[in-house]
Amino acid sequence: MMSETKKIAIVLSGCGVFDGAEIHEAILTILAVARAGAQYEIFAPNIPQAHVVNHLTGEATDENRNVLVESARIARGKIKDLKDYTPAGFDALIFPGGFGVAKNLSNFAFYGSNCTVNADVERAVKTTVDAGKPIGALCISPVVIAKILGDAEVTIGQDLDTAEAIKKMGGKHIPSSHGDVVVDPRYKLVTSPCYMLDATIDQIYDGAKNVVETILSLIG
Amino acid sequence: MMSETKKIAIVLSGCGVFDGAEIHEAILTILAVARAGAQYEIFAPNIPQAHVVNHLTGEATDENRNVLVESARIARGKIKDLKDYTPAGFDALIFPGGFGVAKNLSNFAFYGSNCTVNADVERAVKTTVDAGKPIGALCISPVVIAKILGDAEVTIGQDLDTAEAIKKMGGKHIPSSHGDVVVDPRYKLVTSPCYMLDATIDQIYDGAKNVVETILSLIG
Repeated sequence: MMSETKKIAIVLSGCGVFDGAEIHEAILTILAVARAGAQYEIFAPNIPQAHVVNHLTGEATDENRNVLVESARIARGKIKDLKDYTPAGFDALIFPGGFGVAKNLSNFAFYGSNCTVNADVERAVKTTVDAGKPIGALCISPVVIAKILGDAEVTIGQDLDTAEAIKKMGGKHIPSSHGDVVVDPRYKLVTSPCYMLDATIDQIYDGAKNVVETILSLIG
Repeated sequence: MMSETKKIAIVLSGCGVFDGAEIHEAILTILAVARAGAQYEIFAPNIPQAHVVNHLTGEATDENRNVLVESARIARGKIKDLKDYTPAGFDALIFPGGFGVAKNLSNFAFYGSNCTVNADVERAVKTTVDAGKPIGALCISPVVIAKILGDAEVTIGQDLDTAEAIKKMGGKHIPSSHGDVVVDPRYKLVTSPCYMLDATIDQIYDGAKNVVETILSLIG
């Protein structure tokens, strides 16, 4: 039997750590997928950003930006509306991190364990789990997956407040360090802390690579 | 003698291939520097972008954005005004590519070989050459270096129009393929085509890594 090229969907939440997708995590996830010989396609929800942050000063501005349009910067224009994602075309789904996950894909940054999740994100995660296909989540993304699945076992590193919120949502938090992955085999869910720890860019690549390689090993 | 950690300055031109720095080239240059055991610091000029392009549609919008503020997204806020760069604090200078180089760091995208170059960029390049320290340039960036230096030997891959413009500016163009580097030893100038070719993200990492490793080998 010939080995078939695996195809992974990557979900972005904007372009920039403080109001969108964390750019290092996004690019290094894409690099890890390509270096593993797999293909990728990039998605983002077509919704307004919760807000826009000036990344030089750290302050919110009065601009309006769109999550799909800004995510297209990372994707070099090759991106699809998350509404069009179905697990049928893919072997796995990965969420890089960044505050965009907690502000755009969900409102965890504003409401903590009482947050709600974007409907397209919720559908993407649930249908992928139902299809028995693996999901990877970096940095703060495991929080959103835990909110959707209720009892998932995940890591976001060592942040006590976020770990407590995960417990309140019914999940279990496993502390971890740079590059570590935590696997919840019931959901084929693979998580790694990345920039939830004070990390260097090569530690981020280790984390992304370990998530991608673990996910590829879980594909049936 | 103890080996000293090398420090490399990286100059960005915004955040997004069509109106700023090419994000893959920027991140993978940073990754290559970190993986080589060197340190980095990120700079950008504090000027308005020439324009803003919607990366989903490819069309210009009526927004106004600032090159330093948008570059800060790639740098996670750790970035300095290019005005504050002096070669004394660094061992080398690297320019990733993207249309921002041809629209913000210079106006090559609008005026071709008759372009002018941003004053901070020109000063950064000239003082680095005068200090005998290497310069790396990816993708379209070699065009700007050629404009500043007059007779540099560079590569931008295989694009005939751009090669012709380099000749008109007094430079020499050497055709190249994925991951190749061209070295002009008179200026310790190292160039590689990256996304000036139709490339994959792992070919971009090869190019960035080869530029960084060649530059480190040229540091006195």
